[in-house]
Order: sequence, then C-alpha cells, then structure tokens
Amino acid sequence: MIKNTRRTQRGETSLTRARIVAEAIALLDTKGESGLTFRALAAALATGAGAIYFHVADKDDVLNAACDAIVAPALDAAAKGATPRERLRTIGLGLFDAIDAHPWVGTELARAPGTMPMMRIVEAVGQEVSAMDVAPATLWSGASALCSYILGVAGQNAANARLGQERGIGRAAFLDELAHRWSQLDAGTYPFTRSIAEQLRVHDDRADFLAGIDLILDGMAARRSR
Amino acid sequence: MIKNTRRTQRGETSLTRARIVAEAIALLDTKGESGLTFRALAAALATGAGAIYFHVADKDDVLNAACDAIVAPALDAAAKGATPRERLRTIGLGLFDAIDAHPWVGTELARAPGTMPMMRIVEAVGQEVSAMDVAPATLWSGASALCSYILGVAGQNAANARLGQERGIGRAAFLDELAHRWSQLDAGTYPFTRSIAEQLRVHDDRADFLAGIDLILDGMAARRSR
Repeated sequence: MIKNTRRTQRGETSLTRARIVAEAIALLDTKGESGLTFRALAAALATGAGAIYFHVADKDDVLNAACDAIVAPALDAAAKGATPRERLRTIGLGLFDAIDAHPWVGTELARAPGTMPMMRIVEAVGQEVSAMDVAPATLWSGASALCSYILGVAGQNAANARLGQERGIGRAAFLDELAHRWSQLDAGTYPFTRSIAEQLRVHDDRADFLAGIDLILDGMAARRSR
Repeated sequence: MIKNTRRTQRGETSLTRARIVAEAIALLDTKGESGLTFRALAAALATGAGAIYFHVADKDDVLNAACDAIVAPALDAAAKGATPRERLRTIGLGLFDAIDAHPWVGTELARAPGTMPMMRIVEAVGQEVSAMDVAPATLWSGASALCSYILGVAGQNAANARLGQERGIGRAAFLDELAHRWSQLDAGTYPFTRSIAEQLRVHDDRADFLAGIDLILDGMAARRSR
C-alpha cells in the first residue's frame, strides 16, 4: 500500500490504488462478491486488467483493501465516546451499520481473520477493554467475546441479506413468514419459540445487537480488577 | 418427514430418508458442501437419483435434514445440567463441538435461519433463559444475544476450518503465522494486538467460547427480575 500513497496524495486523476478500491466498493455494493472481477473493474475504470495489476496483487488484495476502506472510517468515527463503555458501544454500532450497508464486508471479515481490517477491529476493541480496568484474565476473554459477537452478528446479517437477495424478498416479508411459521409450532414442544413469534416479527436488529453488547459489558464490569 | 417415519421405524434396509441423510453427512464431512450432489449420493447408496427424490425434495432439504441430525442430539445431550446456567453452558459447548466436528453445520445454520435446527436451538436456549428468572425485557435480549454469540462463533469456526482447508495448513501453523504478524505490528499504533500475539498463538478456542457465554450469563444475572 505504501508505494501508492504518494501517487494518491499527489491527487492524480490517473489510475491509483485508491480509485481501484473505490470502484471495487461500488461493484461489491451493487453486484455482490461475484460481481467483482478484473474485467468489470477494467471496464468501470476505462483501462486494462494489466494496468490494474500494477497497483493490486490479486482479487483477494482488492477485496481486502475494499473491506479495510469501509472498516477504518467506521472505527475512526467511534473514537468519540466519553468512556470506554460508550466507545465500545459506538464501535459495535459503527461496524453493525457499515456491514448492514455493505453486507460483503461481513463475509470478507469472516473469511480473512488475519488481515488489516480485522487487526484494526481487534486493536480498537482491545484498547477500550484495556481502559475498562477489568481483571487481567478478562482482558483477553472480554475482547475476544466482543470481537466474536460483533463479527458473528455481522456475518449473520450478511448471510441474511444474501438470503433475502436470493429469495427476492425483503426483511419484513421474510420475518412475517418466519413469525407465522413459529406461531404455528406445537405449543408443548416449542413453548418459547412460539411465544416470541410476534416479537420476532417486530424486533429491531440494531437494538438487539446493542443489547447483546451491553450484556457482555455488564458481565465484564462484574469482574473489575478492584 | 412424517410420511417416511413409518418406513424408517420398520427397520427396512431399503432406501429411507434416514439412510440418505446419514450418507449425506458422510459426504459433507469428507468432501464439504460441494461434495454433496445427488450423483454422489446415488453412487454411495447404490441407487438412482430418481429413487432419492422420492424421499427428499431437493439438495436444500437434504442439507437441512443433515444439519438437524447433528444439532438435535447435541441439544439433547445438553439437557443434563443441574441449573439453567449449567445447561446453557452445555448447550453452547455441545453446539461448539458439533460444529467443530462438522464445519458445514456452521455454514448451514447461518444460511437457513428459519429451519428446524435453528428453531430447536432458539427453543433450547429460550427455555433455559426463561428458567433463569431474568427481567422480562432480558428474556428476548438474553436469548437473542446467546443465540447470536453461539451461532456467530460457530460460523467463524466453520469459516476458519474452510480457510485452513483451502490454504492446506493446520490450525497451529495458521496461528503461528498470524501471531508472528501481530507481533511485528507497530507498537505505537497497535499496542493491544501486539501485546496479545503470544496469547493468540496458544489460546484455546473452546475455553474462550465458554468465557464469552459466561460473560453474557453474568450480564443477564445482573438483571434478575428480583
């Protein structure tokens, strides 16, 4: 990435890594992962695949850089909370919203645990957990649980979005159908699932996601080092 | 499913839904999702694809039944704990182990939120959360957070297993490589990630998974209805 920074900063309108990544994001947003090909990138950028390969290594490199270009600003925006707890909630919601807007980011994060966007997330979460004054053992388990939860929900949201696309139905219609099925379950065997069918239909994914973050944070707070 | 129950119970050695599902599990375990085809099923069962279609609707039906055949016994085994908290930990671990042994189950659960294995999980978790005497608002958010966490980690484990397969490296080699990369990060920008590089290398996924369940349960316990 470093070798191209100077080119980008000089503000060239010619082909740059940043322009390739921006176009990749547009393709991923409109056509999904399968829509990101060097042929499509070359067409959108009015250039040849060879010229693109001068700036990026391969499709994984482009996907990863695109993912990082979404994740990094989402994390930066979260730096604003007054307390570690507030900042952790904002980090979680920032990632939730980013992945909601760009479902392929959820897939890519699950697929590439060792790459930069993931390390950014681990660092952002870990720094705030460190600032929470938890017991040393909770430092790893707390950061690990928060990252797993955030990325797990993100991955599930991405899967749901893809499922909706495949089946050509919106979220409301999907939940209506599912809630109806749950409400028809046998009351003896599925009392809980049946009882929450209506709540399933009207639930707010974002609020539920945040409630889960709060539960983990409450669990961590119960283990303050002092 | 009902129409075939009688056939299966009669103990016929001819083609049954149960035999198809058992063979599908074997194929999924050895060859992954792409290995599950009607051609491969027919060959393994020494029959024709037409005969198989008499018992199952399509590939989704087979995948779903195979997933349910793994999930249901994992949940049954978890019914043994003495308290709701113990049973929730056992449910979590049972699913973790089942998905660790059959990574395709993690993928399938993420892909099919409305199907039976998923409803079983919601019900098992929900019944135990209901028995925990939490405040009414925590009933939904607690069950929802636990399910999201369990399935999220499961999905990530499945993704990691697939990544390992694709790259042809084992878990230890992968973590060594990642820990090395983390340890080389800039200490000013990535102090946390750098500091946990060694812990990443030696961490126990199962113990960390359980620690996360405990944090959520602790958070819920802090909101007892009384």
